[in-house]
Amino acid sequence: MGGDGAVVRGARICYQSAARDPGADERLIGRLMHSTPRHNTVFEHAVFRWGVKCPIFVARQWMRHRIASYNEKSLRYCAADREYYVPEGVAADDPYVAHMEASFDLYEQLLAAGWKRERARGVLGAAVYTEFIWTVNAWSLMNWLEKRLDPHAQPEHRQYADAALAIYQQVMPITAGAFVSSVLGR
Amino acid sequence: MGGDGAVVRGARICYQSAARDPGADERLIGRLMHSTPRHNTVFEHAVFRWGVKCPIFVARQWMRHRIASYNEKSLRYCAADREYYVPEGVAADDPYVAHMEASFDLYEQLLAAGWKRERARGVLGAAVYTEFIWTVNAWSLMNWLEKRLDPHAQPEHRQYADAALAIYQQVMPITAGAFVSSVLGR
Amino acid sequence: MGGDGAVVRGARICYQSAARDPGADERLIGRLMHSTPRHNTVFEHAVFRWGVKCPIFVARQWMRHRIASYNEKSLRYCAADREYYVPEGVAADDPYVAHMEASFDLYEQLLAAGWKRERARGVLGAAVYTEFIWTVNAWSLMNWLEKRLDPHAQPEHRQYADAALAIYQQVMPITAGAFVSSVLGR
Amino acid sequence: MGGDGAVVRGARICYQSAARDPGADERLIGRLMHSTPRHNTVFEHAVFRWGVKCPIFVARQWMRHRIASYNEKSLRYCAADREYYVPEGVAADDPYVAHMEASFDLYEQLLAAGWKRERARGVLGAAVYTEFIWTVNAWSLMNWLEKRLDPHAQPEHRQYADAALAIYQQVMPITAGAFVSSVLGR
Repeated sequence: MGGDGAVVRGARICYQSAARDPGADERLIGRLMHSTPRHNTVFEHAVFRWGVKCPIFVARQWMRHRIASYNEKSLRYCAADREYYVPEGVAADDPYVAHMEASFDLYEQLLAAGWKRERARGVLGAAVYTEFIWTVNAWSLMNWLEKRLDPHAQPEHRQYADAALAIYQQVMPITAGAFVSSVLGR
Repeated sequence: MGGDGAVVRGARICYQSAARDPGADERLIGRLMHSTPRHNTVFEHAVFRWGVKCPIFVARQWMRHRIASYNEKSLRYCAADREYYVPEGVAADDPYVAHMEASFDLYEQLLAAGWKRERARGVLGAAVYTEFIWTVNAWSLMNWLEKRLDPHAQPEHRQYADAALAIYQQVMPITAGAFVSSVLGR
Repeated sequence: MGGDGAVVRGARICYQSAARDPGADERLIGRLMHSTPRHNTVFEHAVFRWGVKCPIFVARQWMRHRIASYNEKSLRYCAADREYYVPEGVAADDPYVAHMEASFDLYEQLLAAGWKRERARGVLGAAVYTEFIWTVNAWSLMNWLEKRLDPHAQPEHRQYADAALAIYQQVMPITAGAFVSSVLGR
Repeated sequence: MGGDGAVVRGARICYQSAARDPGADERLIGRLMHSTPRHNTVFEHAVFRWGVKCPIFVARQWMRHRIASYNEKSLRYCAADREYYVPEGVAADDPYVAHMEASFDLYEQLLAAGWKRERARGVLGAAVYTEFIWTVNAWSLMNWLEKRLDPHAQPEHRQYADAALAIYQQVMPITAGAFVSSVLGR
């Protein structure tokens, strides 16, 4: 919702100004992004909604970002699907894979024996996939990107940030461009 | 952004369910709104952006609602326009009007004498109009509506809530309808 | 931090009032809690800091409460301890226990084989214990209590809410008392 | 609440580490403050409660900082006191002072004539003093300090930030010291 135009409108109501030439909006966004301390509020009027499927250990980090809205597949109300993350290079006959399969076997036995789903899920590892909807404004998105694109971030999470950055650059080219140069320093 | 469909998608990802008949989504929203405690997160995926013009005393109450994004016309960067709220029934020759006019006269004199705008605005009363952009999700909007439609709310603020409710009912008829019956009890 | 006195001060600055008799503060808190819509801001000035140790599946629900601060034991930086939740009535020779032990055995083998901790944790189930520090104001605490004391909440989470309510009643007897009667309806 | 110790505990639970020598905690805080992107969550466990009295135009900027709790003297429930900001160098016989006095004269006439306080306040200028209680964690406090200590901030607001910084340095000397050197670059 909104895109670069929402950022510009948010800024121009403050200054009651209008663009005088074609590049004015782009220069305005560049200044807002580059200033220290940054002007966060103008970036909050553009809002994204994403559908995400990722391992639980990635989702746990993700949901620590509190300025956003989440709704996640509930393993209290739904049975888990047999889908889990296998790191690159791990073969199908690896003990890792055997263990993940065994955990789903046990999970299904526990359910068949009358355990509640909310309790049986205790045996499912953090590599199991979950799904959620994530609604987030561009400011909070950039905060997540900055943290998750960092070289110290977990690579499995960074892959999602890389993909999200590419979409961000398509949808809000001016703002994302200013972010990449001013904040990421690329 | 989103409308009733965003609420339904937020809920259905939790339960991994699909609507089986035409009224299923409406019944789902009704249940989510009616339950105690309410399920707030599903209502956060629908987002509104409003342009508001109101007296400063209304804006001050409004901006106490923190789960939202605001950008306001700045009286540091722009000179104030001579526009202020006059309560119904107050005549053009009322001392109230004379005083508001005198405050703008003084404001302009102070600016002409070299005062900074940010300091000269000290003489302008809370009845002066301001403008802002308000981006808010449907959950936070309903919290504002509930508080500002209350009979104890200031009537000048309630008028804005009445107008916003009518727009809410047009844009998200199912969710707004459930809100009006379950929360407002109308 | 603060206790009942912080709530009273928050309210009395609004009204610029003072207690005229010994029961005045208690009646004031009762009215604030009982009114519809509730006055949330006055309850935000009392702040709690808790140390929590719980299964990951409980922590995941807990951290969905966003108006709070969390710092959790990181399985990126620390190796996991062999501690996990065993539901009441599950015997030491139950396949559940055997599986949880097997998951730690594999986890340790993976670490020994050079896997990073952040990746090896994928095999550890949601029943494994985690620890975190939780800083939360009384308003957000009550929202968590209301949701987690609900009969539909997961029993493993409800136990924590029961324990927290007892502490809340000790530390802020007047506010917690009004909460129990007005909101929980007990 | 908490002080430097709360920051240290928040960080040490992540790493499950303990200080090995007297300077270890100070070096830990220094690293957390200096890293890019900064680790905000550990700074959220220390919480401050302030009593503030300031002109309305300062309060309006202040309350735009949303990660905090506010309760303000209400001009719906209390009559305004005749107290307003007079910039340095403005004499007692200045038109500014005369106008502020006239606004209170009119305000009192309107009240005497039966106007509601909530409406009569419309004539009172933004230089009138208000009071509020502000509960804020150290992270959000530092964000406010960074923005309000900036040379471009309004001087009337900067004075409050200067005073708050001095108190911050007394109460949390290690964290505030790291903030001053790493963030403010002083």
